[in-house]
Amino acid sequence: MTNGNGGAGGTRGKAIKCKAAVAWGPRVPLSLEEVEVAPPGPLEVRVKVLLTSICHTDLSAWKGENKVHRKYPRILGHEAAGVVESVGEGVEGLAPGDHVVPIFTGECEKCVYCKSDKTNLCGTYRVDPFKTTMVHDNGTRFSVVDRQSGVRQPVFHFLNTSTFTEYTVLDAACAVKISPKAPLEKMCLLSCGITTGVGAAWNSADVSAGSTVAVFGLGVVGLAVAEGARLRGAARIIGVDVNPAKFTKGKEMGVTDFVDSKACDKPVHEVISEMTDGGVDYSFECTGINDVLREAFLSTHDGWGLTVMLGIHSTPKMVPLHPMELYGRRIIGCVFGDFKGKSQLPDFVDKCVNGEVNINFDGFITHKMPFSDINKAFQLLEEGKSLRCLLNL
Amino acid sequence: MTNGNGGAGGTRGKAIKCKAAVAWGPRVPLSLEEVEVAPPGPLEVRVKVLLTSICHTDLSAWKGENKVHRKYPRILGHEAAGVVESVGEGVEGLAPGDHVVPIFTGECEKCVYCKSDKTNLCGTYRVDPFKTTMVHDNGTRFSVVDRQSGVRQPVFHFLNTSTFTEYTVLDAACAVKISPKAPLEKMCLLSCGITTGVGAAWNSADVSAGSTVAVFGLGVVGLAVAEGARLRGAARIIGVDVNPAKFTKGKEMGVTDFVDSKACDKPVHEVISEMTDGGVDYSFECTGINDVLREAFLSTHDGWGLTVMLGIHSTPKMVPLHPMELYGRRIIGCVFGDFKGKSQLPDFVDKCVNGEVNINFDGFITHKMPFSDINKAFQLLEEGKSLRCLLNL
Ligand SMILES: [Zn+2]
Ligand SMILES: [Zn+2]
Ligand SMILES: [Zn+2]
Ligand SMILES: [Zn+2]
Repeated sequence: MTNGNGGAGGTRGKAIKCKAAVAWGPRVPLSLEEVEVAPPGPLEVRVKVLLTSICHTDLSAWKGENKVHRKYPRILGHEAAGVVESVGEGVEGLAPGDHVVPIFTGECEKCVYCKSDKTNLCGTYRVDPFKTTMVHDNGTRFSVVDRQSGVRQPVFHFLNTSTFTEYTVLDAACAVKISPKAPLEKMCLLSCGITTGVGAAWNSADVSAGSTVAVFGLGVVGLAVAEGARLRGAARIIGVDVNPAKFTKGKEMGVTDFVDSKACDKPVHEVISEMTDGGVDYSFECTGINDVLREAFLSTHDGWGLTVMLGIHSTPKMVPLHPMELYGRRIIGCVFGDFKGKSQLPDFVDKCVNGEVNINFDGFITHKMPFSDINKAFQLLEEGKSLRCLLNL
Repeated sequence: MTNGNGGAGGTRGKAIKCKAAVAWGPRVPLSLEEVEVAPPGPLEVRVKVLLTSICHTDLSAWKGENKVHRKYPRILGHEAAGVVESVGEGVEGLAPGDHVVPIFTGECEKCVYCKSDKTNLCGTYRVDPFKTTMVHDNGTRFSVVDRQSGVRQPVFHFLNTSTFTEYTVLDAACAVKISPKAPLEKMCLLSCGITTGVGAAWNSADVSAGSTVAVFGLGVVGLAVAEGARLRGAARIIGVDVNPAKFTKGKEMGVTDFVDSKACDKPVHEVISEMTDGGVDYSFECTGINDVLREAFLSTHDGWGLTVMLGIHSTPKMVPLHPMELYGRRIIGCVFGDFKGKSQLPDFVDKCVNGEVNINFDGFITHKMPFSDINKAFQLLEEGKSLRCLLNL
């Protein structure tokens, strides 16, 4: 905060000037500058972001890998934890001072999707990479003065969240109130990566004790899948990656066996089939690479194998399977670990706090830095040197 | 039977000479001739076929549409009902005189697949279009004298069943003992089509009361899906076909709405989406056409839609979906209605007999003929004029 206007009482209903890391173009280093954050509109909340981390989706958006992402200026970031500063008209269940984690796939709790127990995708606030403004008025809550023209212009939102800023505005449907006892450094990771991975193992696949699992891609999400599988008592968790350095970390996180896919002299699915007498019970695709998706699918045991897809496949390729291959194996997609954010995440948080669920959060946090070092943090992630780098705002 | 050797006692352990409809080449009319049927080998049974019907898979094999099918001479046919004539060494649970239906996807009850409650595909006796001989010795149990050369030669088996013959030999794993009270004319249809369709609705999709369903392809399997959905209390069952004549039959079988896909001025999935406020809960693809598969998939409601694939896609095309489309909708394959034939079909039969399950069998039986008219029956099916034509042997 740079405007020095004190506590929540002082800022409510007013615009807040604060620091944000603004993306101005593909691969242009994020620029820390003063933005103005408007008060929350109806059904919105303004949140003081205390911690944010960087996930591959941010990296990919920063690189502008997909046309969808090329909307500037924009505030990226979607994994964070913070405190509610003020709430807009009609907001229920959230008040200033509440500890919250933003969720990129919201839950309005009212639409047909939210009322269905078969999906966690809200009809109104579901994740949408095309979305750059708020639902209420199709406007932005951020603005910045362009240094060259001197003109104030809107700054676009990202993934319902935009957390690379000291203050952000979220739809109340995208802010989950959590126990004030929960340590925010850890909870920050529940905002995306860990929830996605653990939930994929628990909710999407329903991994059973004694089962065998293969995880393709040992980034945060893949390792969180391994954590989820380990907590369910999986007998064997095979990690697959092109980078053998990931194996060391994997061992700490429950991975029992490794397959270096670059060093294999035959398709990975054949290697895994031999290791497991016909294939694993569950495989998880966390890379977003189409060829890997096929290997993950074929790595499961014929008859009952289930592949859970978590990666983002932005290329226009088709599912790399023949229809007949769907007789005997299943494949499903999973968003945010199939958790309903507002209604199920608080309970998950409580269980993490009271020790009922023992996730190795610290194993995921490889770096901590001040917010101003955000470009360094991007570099570490791009070079595969970090899992999660926590940025303190 | 042409050898006149009387009852079971008289033929046991001996070859039986009888009439069979032999396929000699693609689209060559089946030739009714005398074949010799060897006694059953270990874990095999010899069955006197009393009724058989013709399913599209037989038609497609007769046409030689797929290279796999071009193995001659061969006895086709897989939907039937009959009586055990004799049993081979080691057979348990089956004895001469037992009423049986053959199943093209067997159940050994011993392998890891059979012991899993997640699949009905047996590791040893699963359906395999490439298979032309018996498991025990890779031999055939049929032979015929070539009319031109005068030389006796083996006749190949088809889909674990080969029912276009007065006597056939089956693996015991592929013969389901059913109640002697069950009328064999109806039970014949449980051998493939009705079980596949009803099971897809019950076991694979688990259609719930009040839900909406779309069925693509109103042949026997599609109509059986509609029957299954109707029995589950589905609120709306939309039939989709290129042939409006199928609609009349559909109405009798529980189909509530029709979409003539040839008459649509926009994609079928858009039509269905408009009819159902966003799509059906379940869709069933029974045509084996790749473009139809995509329409069926997109016809379901985003968020929780489930597509069950029942068609045979023999072309080398890939699943016509983008990986990202799997986030929000599911697609699964279903073989034999996900019924475990040996362990679950007898109970299904009992429920049909005692009225607990009220399937409109008669609605499916459009024709009855003597076995000798089998080529006429093929023609009716090819012209879309019959659903099931029962052949009396
Ligand atoms: Zn993320
Ligand atoms: Zn909602
Ligand atoms: Zn059939
Ligand atoms: Zn088996």
